[in-house]
Amino acid sequence: MAKEIRLNAFEMNCVAHQSPGLWRHPRDRSRDYRRLDYWTGLAKTLERGLFDGLFLADVLGVYDVYGGTPDAALRNATQIPVNDPLLLVPAMANVTRHLGFGVTATLSYEAPFPFARRMSTLDHLTEGRIGWNVVTGYLDSAARALGRTGQNAHDDRYAIADDYMEVVYKLWEGSWAEDAVVADAAHGVFTRPEGVRRVSHTSAHHRLDAIHLSEPSPQRTPVLYQAGTSPAGRAFAGRHAECVFMSGPSKTVIAPRVAAVRAAAAAAGRDPAEIRIFALMTVIVAPTDAEAAAKLAEYRHYASLEGALTLMSGWTGVDFAALDPDQIVEHVDREAGRSALENITRADPSRRWTVREVAEHVAIGGIGPVLVGSPATVADALEGWVDETGIDGFNLAFVVRPETFEDVADLLVPELQRRGRYKRAYAPGTLREKLFGAGRALTAPDHPAARHRWHLAPTDTAPAEPALPA
Amino acid sequence: MAKEIRLNAFEMNCVAHQSPGLWRHPRDRSRDYRRLDYWTGLAKTLERGLFDGLFLADVLGVYDVYGGTPDAALRNATQIPVNDPLLLVPAMANVTRHLGFGVTATLSYEAPFPFARRMSTLDHLTEGRIGWNVVTGYLDSAARALGRTGQNAHDDRYAIADDYMEVVYKLWEGSWAEDAVVADAAHGVFTRPEGVRRVSHTSAHHRLDAIHLSEPSPQRTPVLYQAGTSPAGRAFAGRHAECVFMSGPSKTVIAPRVAAVRAAAAAAGRDPAEIRIFALMTVIVAPTDAEAAAKLAEYRHYASLEGALTLMSGWTGVDFAALDPDQIVEHVDREAGRSALENITRADPSRRWTVREVAEHVAIGGIGPVLVGSPATVADALEGWVDETGIDGFNLAFVVRPETFEDVADLLVPELQRRGRYKRAYAPGTLREKLFGAGRALTAPDHPAARHRWHLAPTDTAPAEPALPA
Repeated sequence: MAKEIRLNAFEMNCVAHQSPGLWRHPRDRSRDYRRLDYWTGLAKTLERGLFDGLFLADVLGVYDVYGGTPDAALRNATQIPVNDPLLLVPAMANVTRHLGFGVTATLSYEAPFPFARRMSTLDHLTEGRIGWNVVTGYLDSAARALGRTGQNAHDDRYAIADDYMEVVYKLWEGSWAEDAVVADAAHGVFTRPEGVRRVSHTSAHHRLDAIHLSEPSPQRTPVLYQAGTSPAGRAFAGRHAECVFMSGPSKTVIAPRVAAVRAAAAAAGRDPAEIRIFALMTVIVAPTDAEAAAKLAEYRHYASLEGALTLMSGWTGVDFAALDPDQIVEHVDREAGRSALENITRADPSRRWTVREVAEHVAIGGIGPVLVGSPATVADALEGWVDETGIDGFNLAFVVRPETFEDVADLLVPELQRRGRYKRAYAPGTLREKLFGAGRALTAPDHPAARHRWHLAPTDTAPAEPALPA
Repeated sequence: MAKEIRLNAFEMNCVAHQSPGLWRHPRDRSRDYRRLDYWTGLAKTLERGLFDGLFLADVLGVYDVYGGTPDAALRNATQIPVNDPLLLVPAMANVTRHLGFGVTATLSYEAPFPFARRMSTLDHLTEGRIGWNVVTGYLDSAARALGRTGQNAHDDRYAIADDYMEVVYKLWEGSWAEDAVVADAAHGVFTRPEGVRRVSHTSAHHRLDAIHLSEPSPQRTPVLYQAGTSPAGRAFAGRHAECVFMSGPSKTVIAPRVAAVRAAAAAAGRDPAEIRIFALMTVIVAPTDAEAAAKLAEYRHYASLEGALTLMSGWTGVDFAALDPDQIVEHVDREAGRSALENITRADPSRRWTVREVAEHVAIGGIGPVLVGSPATVADALEGWVDETGIDGFNLAFVVRPETFEDVADLLVPELQRRGRYKRAYAPGTLREKLFGAGRALTAPDHPAARHRWHLAPTDTAPAEPALPA
């Protein structure tokens, strides 16, 4: 049986995310990113389209590599201003029942203890629909904002991240036994104290001696997403990630990356088939191919090349403002672990890309590929991606919001359903159960979070009475 | 004209807040603190009752002074489990239009940069209805949870807090000019770069070099609440607070404290009349005095004395488990700056309180006084408090949730309105405008946050075109 295709929406609590300049489009509502009704409306649209989740990107710094200042980023609203993503979730959860929420949080800059509580709180309030996109941070400006002189070295970041994961696993899974909370009004016992342990952790990076503040939530550890594609990032994903976001220009480029992530999971002792992999994609769909092409042409009218190069400079560490627009980009040095430029130029390795052509490419959908066409045309392409690469679905960026997602929900999803490649209703349960099946609310037994989980021994005796006469 | 009485609701994202044991009451919904529908229902009730705000307490540690372990706190759900308060706000804001939200956040444990963005995000999403209760932390367990060996010394905490405030004022008020964002689609300029400044701050406690990530929100600096009653805490409130929460057992005890807070504001060069002061109070109201008394008697049946002493031990630093229940508490040493015990015993200075009597007192409404009676009886008493002490209103704790607040909205508020002592509709605008009047969305000119605010010079020239051909 052909694999079901899964969809995530890729969003950010800012004006210009992956399609710089499109905030100027007359139908675009990006200026409303500050308003709850934009987000609640979007959440309802996505749930109508049976999206698995809404994935919220984040960055704690500003794109100031282009021209060496934040000016271009500010002018183009290139992911600045950018508000906190976590605070969008409760309002959206309140108007939906099934949609999952994958929030990006940079573990480099918040202590594990309050962060773990934030995620537990979200898992409670959403009734188990929360995911965490684990990010170690990639902008020097973010490090400076936190009082540091610069970022940690790339590979160090992952060692620190491993240690951070160990701490939050202990808090989420190991501090409270699954059956610690009894809420026994008759005996006056809310939590059995013997079911709660203090987490002690001492390492070079993190020190902690505390009980987790939240009782066990439906999923305990949020569903873990990761997007690193460097060797260190891929190994980290192999150890921790349950879902992986990937961006690549073509099926040919993506397929070995998919295999590499699954191999990394196997190397970490986990079931490689268990990793759900989502490829970044932008879909412009209309009733006919001609209408879709016209829509793209209309969108292009609002694209900002300066905004595109501002993004590219941040992603690559290369100041594109210093380059001639007609310069060939293959000559540009790239930092290790940054594959943004490669993701574009490898779409057509026979071609030599100029700076301007790169900017034109990035201006619609960022570094991800763009599919344009009728529902049948786009569905054909998406099926090809899934069947030929081993991915599980797509992380869909928007061009005009929320129009892009409305088009997907109303035009593309019915076509995929007709083909038997898309669900007709949500599965019950938590986000993890929707992704991995019934009874799977918690991380799999082969996941490193699972080994911290414990139960109190069954007991026939009633809990002790309070010590004081009450 | 008699002063209008203002009401806040005092809540916490946990099971047992100020009335230990009452979670066992058959009508109590405390177990539902994890559910969004509890909070959205509560917010609607409070808006029906024209409350100015919902004040959310928080603590990042566990009450482990009683018996030297967290066991009693766990058994009684004494503010543990406790979830993050900020994440409740967006869902409640989405179902209300006027209710304000005062959230507690402990500045000792989060870097100013991400914290400032969180609050700006909330101010945007609530359209200017956010307040911040500035707390420096009082539990050693919280310090240990963040990897420290203990808390900073009490007075040091306020010096560090002053420095923290300076950083967040710079971020909220000084980084973006009021008119930096133009969202000019025709010229392709979202933000005028010359309207955004980098905040540089270097001190012994905080180091920062960054632009604030959020554009100016309706209030910029959230409405600032403070509750410290020590000399250092009061001086801090005089410098920064726009609203002060206070707890005291009687009008006689409260009146000089009110005067002292206003004097501290004057000493800091601010208008003392501008501080809105709310006294902690628990109200048990029913159609008649007899019915209210019966209600209190019924509530008492569910109170937990162990839970009460667990709270008292945390608030005072004294292990009440080591004391005889019939011991007189005047003999107990108290730490400087902790007035919890004093707040109880001074209710009746002629009386000698035993540990058990203190527990019985705390078990309903915590350290605050309790008013029981018909709407007329309670309104008489509240009017007396406001008229004889100079406070502006009350911070109302619950006994049974949400019943306590429903009773206030449905029985007490109409009585206060009949007397002309309570608003009949919300004033328009932000929380700060509701508290201080029209046109007052931003902090007053004499507030230290205000001096960081700036505007771009008016210009007749259009913003510059983007540098690249777009």
